[in-house]
Amino acid sequence: MKQAIVARADIGMGQGKLAAQVAHASLSAYEDTDTQTRKRWKGEGQKKVVLKANGESTLFELAEKADRAGLPNAIIRDAGHTQLDPGTVTALAVGPAEDDLVDRVTGDLSLY
Amino acid sequence: MKQAIVARADIGMGQGKLAAQVAHASLSAYEDTDTQTRKRWKGEGQKKVVLKANGESTLFELAEKADRAGLPNAIIRDAGHTQLDPGTVTALAVGPAEDDLVDRVTGDLSLY
Repeated sequence: MKQAIVARADIGMGQGKLAAQVAHASLSAYEDTDTQTRKRWKGEGQKKVVLKANGESTLFELAEKADRAGLPNAIIRDAGHTQLDPGTVTALAVGPAEDDLVDRVTGDLSLY
Repeated sequence: MKQAIVARADIGMGQGKLAAQVAHASLSAYEDTDTQTRKRWKGEGQKKVVLKANGESTLFELAEKADRAGLPNAIIRDAGHTQLDPGTVTALAVGPAEDDLVDRVTGDLSLY
Protein backbone atom coordinates (compact mmCIF):
# COMPACT_ATOMS: atom_id res chain seq x y z
CA MET A 1 0.00 0.00 0.00
CA LYS A 2 1.06 3.54 -0.49
CA GLN A 3 0.06 7.15 -0.53
CA ALA A 4 1.15 9.38 -3.43
CA ILE A 5 1.48 13.08 -2.82
CA VAL A 6 1.64 15.25 -5.92
CA ALA A 7 3.09 18.72 -5.41
CA ARG A 8 3.40 21.58 -7.86
CA ALA A 9 6.89 22.22 -9.19
CA ASP A 10 5.90 25.40 -11.05
CA ILE A 11 5.28 27.85 -8.20
CA GLY A 12 8.74 28.13 -6.70
CA MET A 13 8.06 26.70 -3.25
CA GLY A 14 11.08 26.54 -0.98
CA GLN A 15 12.03 23.17 0.53
CA GLY A 16 10.35 23.78 3.88
CA LYS A 17 7.22 25.17 2.28
CA LEU A 18 7.00 22.18 -0.04
CA ALA A 19 7.41 19.77 2.88
CA ALA A 20 4.66 21.50 4.87
CA GLN A 21 2.21 21.39 1.94
CA VAL A 22 2.97 17.72 1.34
CA ALA A 23 2.35 17.00 5.02
CA HIS A 24 -0.98 18.91 4.89
CA ALA A 25 -2.10 16.86 1.89
CA SER A 26 -0.92 13.59 3.40
CA LEU A 27 -2.79 14.12 6.66
CA SER A 28 -5.95 15.37 4.94
CA ALA A 29 -6.22 12.35 2.63
CA TYR A 30 -5.44 10.06 5.56
CA GLU A 31 -8.41 11.57 7.41
CA ASP A 32 -10.55 10.70 4.36
CA THR A 33 -9.50 7.01 4.64
CA ASP A 34 -11.38 4.19 6.37
CA THR A 35 -9.99 2.79 9.62
CA GLN A 36 -9.12 -0.64 8.21
CA THR A 37 -7.08 0.81 5.34
CA ARG A 38 -5.31 3.23 7.68
CA LYS A 39 -4.27 0.39 9.96
CA ARG A 40 -2.95 -1.76 7.14
CA TRP A 41 -0.98 1.13 5.63
CA LYS A 42 0.57 2.05 8.98
CA GLY A 43 1.35 -1.59 9.68
CA GLU A 44 3.34 -1.67 6.45
CA GLY A 45 5.31 1.47 7.38
CA GLN A 46 3.03 4.18 5.90
CA LYS A 47 4.85 4.31 2.54
CA LYS A 48 4.69 7.72 0.86
CA VAL A 49 5.98 8.87 -2.52
CA VAL A 50 6.24 12.52 -3.47
CA LEU A 51 5.65 13.30 -7.14
CA LYS A 52 5.71 16.48 -9.16
CA ALA A 53 3.27 18.17 -11.50
CA ASN A 54 3.18 21.51 -13.29
CA GLY A 55 0.01 23.51 -12.96
CA GLU A 56 -3.09 23.23 -10.80
CA SER A 57 -5.16 21.76 -13.65
CA THR A 58 -3.16 18.51 -13.41
CA LEU A 59 -3.94 18.29 -9.69
CA PHE A 60 -7.67 18.78 -10.27
CA GLU A 61 -7.71 16.17 -13.06
CA LEU A 62 -5.94 13.63 -10.86
CA ALA A 63 -8.26 14.37 -7.93
CA GLU A 64 -11.26 13.67 -10.18
CA LYS A 65 -9.67 10.45 -11.35
CA ALA A 66 -9.08 9.43 -7.73
CA ASP A 67 -12.70 10.26 -6.88
CA ARG A 68 -13.99 8.14 -9.74
CA ALA A 69 -11.79 5.26 -8.55
CA GLY A 70 -13.14 5.67 -5.01
CA LEU A 71 -9.71 6.51 -3.58
CA PRO A 72 -9.25 8.88 -0.64
CA ASN A 73 -7.75 12.15 -1.79
CA ALA A 74 -7.29 15.76 -0.72
CA ILE A 75 -6.32 18.95 -2.51
CA ILE A 76 -4.50 21.63 -0.50
CA ARG A 77 -4.79 25.37 -0.97
CA ASP A 78 -2.25 27.56 0.77
CA ALA A 79 -3.50 30.12 3.27
CA GLY A 80 -1.01 32.50 1.69
CA HIS A 81 0.60 33.93 4.81
CA THR A 82 4.03 33.43 3.25
CA GLN A 83 5.54 32.95 -0.20
CA LEU A 84 2.30 32.23 -2.13
CA ASP A 85 -0.92 34.10 -2.99
CA PRO A 86 -3.86 33.09 -0.77
CA GLY A 87 -5.77 30.13 -2.21
CA THR A 88 -2.91 28.84 -4.37
CA VAL A 89 -3.37 25.13 -4.99
CA THR A 90 -0.15 23.44 -3.91
CA ALA A 91 -0.56 19.68 -3.48
CA LEU A 92 -2.81 16.63 -3.82
CA ALA A 93 -2.57 13.38 -1.88
CA VAL A 94 -4.04 10.13 -3.22
CA GLY A 95 -4.40 7.15 -0.89
CA PRO A 96 -3.37 5.28 1.13
CA ALA A 97 -4.57 2.42 -1.07
CA GLU A 98 -3.17 -0.59 -2.90
CA ASP A 99 -0.12 0.34 -4.98
CA ASP A 100 -1.69 -0.53 -8.34
CA LEU A 101 -4.82 1.52 -7.64
CA VAL A 102 -2.73 4.56 -6.75
CA ASP A 103 -0.53 4.00 -9.81
CA ARG A 104 -3.58 4.11 -12.08
CA VAL A 105 -4.04 7.72 -10.96
CA THR A 106 -0.49 9.02 -10.48
CA GLY A 107 1.66 6.43 -12.29
CA ASP A 108 2.71 8.79 -15.11
CA LEU A 109 4.35 11.37 -12.84
CA SER A 110 8.02 11.71 -11.90
CA LEU A 111 9.46 11.67 -8.40
CA TYR A 112 9.92 15.13 -6.88
CA MET B 1 -1.89 26.01 17.73
CA LYS B 2 0.80 24.52 15.60
CA GLN B 3 2.92 21.52 14.87
CA ALA B 4 6.68 21.94 14.39
CA ILE B 5 8.52 19.42 12.28
CA VAL B 6 12.29 19.39 12.65
CA ALA B 7 14.19 17.76 9.81
CA ARG B 8 17.90 17.08 9.48
CA ALA B 9 19.74 19.37 7.09
CA ASP B 10 23.03 17.45 7.36
CA ILE B 11 22.23 14.22 5.49
CA GLY B 12 21.66 15.51 1.97
CA MET B 13 18.01 14.57 1.56
CA GLY B 14 16.50 15.59 -1.77
CA GLN B 15 13.38 17.77 -1.76
CA GLY B 16 10.94 14.90 -2.25
CA LYS B 17 12.66 12.74 0.34
CA LEU B 18 12.61 15.58 2.84
CA ALA B 19 8.90 16.19 2.21
CA ALA B 20 8.07 12.50 2.70
CA GLN B 21 9.99 12.33 6.00
CA VAL B 22 8.29 15.50 7.25
CA ALA B 23 4.91 14.00 6.35
CA HIS B 24 5.77 10.75 8.20
CA ALA B 25 6.71 12.71 11.31
CA SER B 26 3.66 14.96 11.09
CA LEU B 27 1.23 12.07 10.83
CA SER B 28 2.95 10.04 13.54
CA ALA B 29 2.87 12.87 16.11
CA TYR B 30 -0.74 13.60 15.13
CA GLU B 31 -1.60 10.00 15.97
CA ASP B 32 -0.02 10.57 19.38
CA THR B 33 -2.37 13.54 20.02
CA ASP B 34 -5.67 13.53 21.90
CA THR B 35 -8.91 13.93 19.91
CA GLN B 36 -9.81 17.34 21.34
CA THR B 37 -6.44 18.86 20.45
CA ARG B 38 -6.54 17.32 16.96
CA LYS B 39 -9.93 18.87 16.31
CA ARG B 40 -8.89 22.31 17.48
CA TRP B 41 -5.72 22.26 15.40
CA LYS B 42 -7.55 21.16 12.27
CA GLY B 43 -10.24 23.76 12.88
CA GLU B 44 -7.53 26.41 12.86
CA GLY B 45 -6.08 25.13 9.56
CA GLN B 46 -3.55 22.58 10.86
CA LYS B 47 -0.63 25.03 10.92
CA LYS B 48 2.76 23.38 10.38
CA VAL B 49 6.25 24.83 10.42
CA VAL B 50 9.27 22.97 9.10
CA LEU B 51 12.53 23.66 10.91
CA LYS B 52 16.06 22.45 10.45
CA ALA B 53 18.62 20.81 12.69
CA ASN B 54 22.04 19.33 12.17
CA GLY B 55 22.64 15.89 13.63
CA GLU B 56 20.42 13.26 15.19
CA SER B 57 21.48 14.19 18.72
CA THR B 58 19.53 17.47 18.43
CA LEU B 59 16.40 15.56 17.43
CA PHE B 60 16.70 13.20 20.40
CA GLU B 61 17.26 16.09 22.82
CA LEU B 62 14.21 17.94 21.50
CA ALA B 63 12.09 14.78 21.67
CA GLU B 64 13.06 14.35 25.33
CA LYS B 65 12.18 17.97 25.99
CA ALA B 66 8.80 17.47 24.31
CA ASP B 67 8.21 14.33 26.39
CA ARG B 68 8.98 16.16 29.61
CA ALA B 69 6.55 18.92 28.59
CA GLY B 70 3.88 16.32 27.84
CA LEU B 71 3.71 17.25 24.15
CA PRO B 72 2.92 14.71 21.44
CA ASN B 73 6.00 13.94 19.39
CA ALA B 74 7.44 11.36 17.02
CA ILE B 75 10.91 10.60 15.72
CA ILE B 76 11.21 9.08 12.25
CA ARG B 77 13.83 6.61 11.08
CA ASP B 78 14.13 5.98 7.38
CA ALA B 79 13.59 2.44 6.12
CA GLY B 80 16.59 3.06 3.87
CA HIS B 81 15.22 1.77 0.57
CA THR B 82 16.55 4.88 -1.18
CA GLN B 83 19.15 7.59 -0.54
CA LEU B 84 19.81 6.89 3.16
CA ASP B 85 21.22 4.05 5.26
CA PRO B 86 18.51 1.97 6.97
CA GLY B 87 17.60 3.37 10.37
CA THR B 88 18.85 6.89 9.71
CA VAL B 89 17.00 9.35 11.94
CA THR B 90 15.52 11.99 9.64
CA ALA B 91 12.82 14.04 11.37
CA LEU B 92 10.96 14.85 14.57
CA ALA B 93 7.47 16.33 14.88
CA VAL B 94 6.34 18.17 18.02
CA GLY B 95 2.66 18.94 18.52
CA PRO B 96 0.04 19.95 17.59
CA ALA B 97 -0.13 22.05 20.75
CA GLU B 98 -0.38 25.69 21.77
CA ASP B 99 2.19 27.82 19.94
CA ASP B 100 4.07 28.88 23.07
CA LEU B 101 4.39 25.31 24.34
CA VAL B 102 5.83 24.18 21.00
CA ASP B 103 8.15 27.20 20.92
CA ARG B 104 9.60 26.22 24.30
CA VAL B 105 10.89 23.07 22.61
CA THR B 106 11.76 24.18 19.06
CA GLY B 107 11.82 27.98 19.30
CA ASP B 108 15.59 28.27 18.77
CA LEU B 109 15.63 26.58 15.37
CA SER B 110 15.57 28.21 11.92
CA LEU B 111 12.98 27.61 9.22
CA TYR B 112 13.99 24.95 6.71
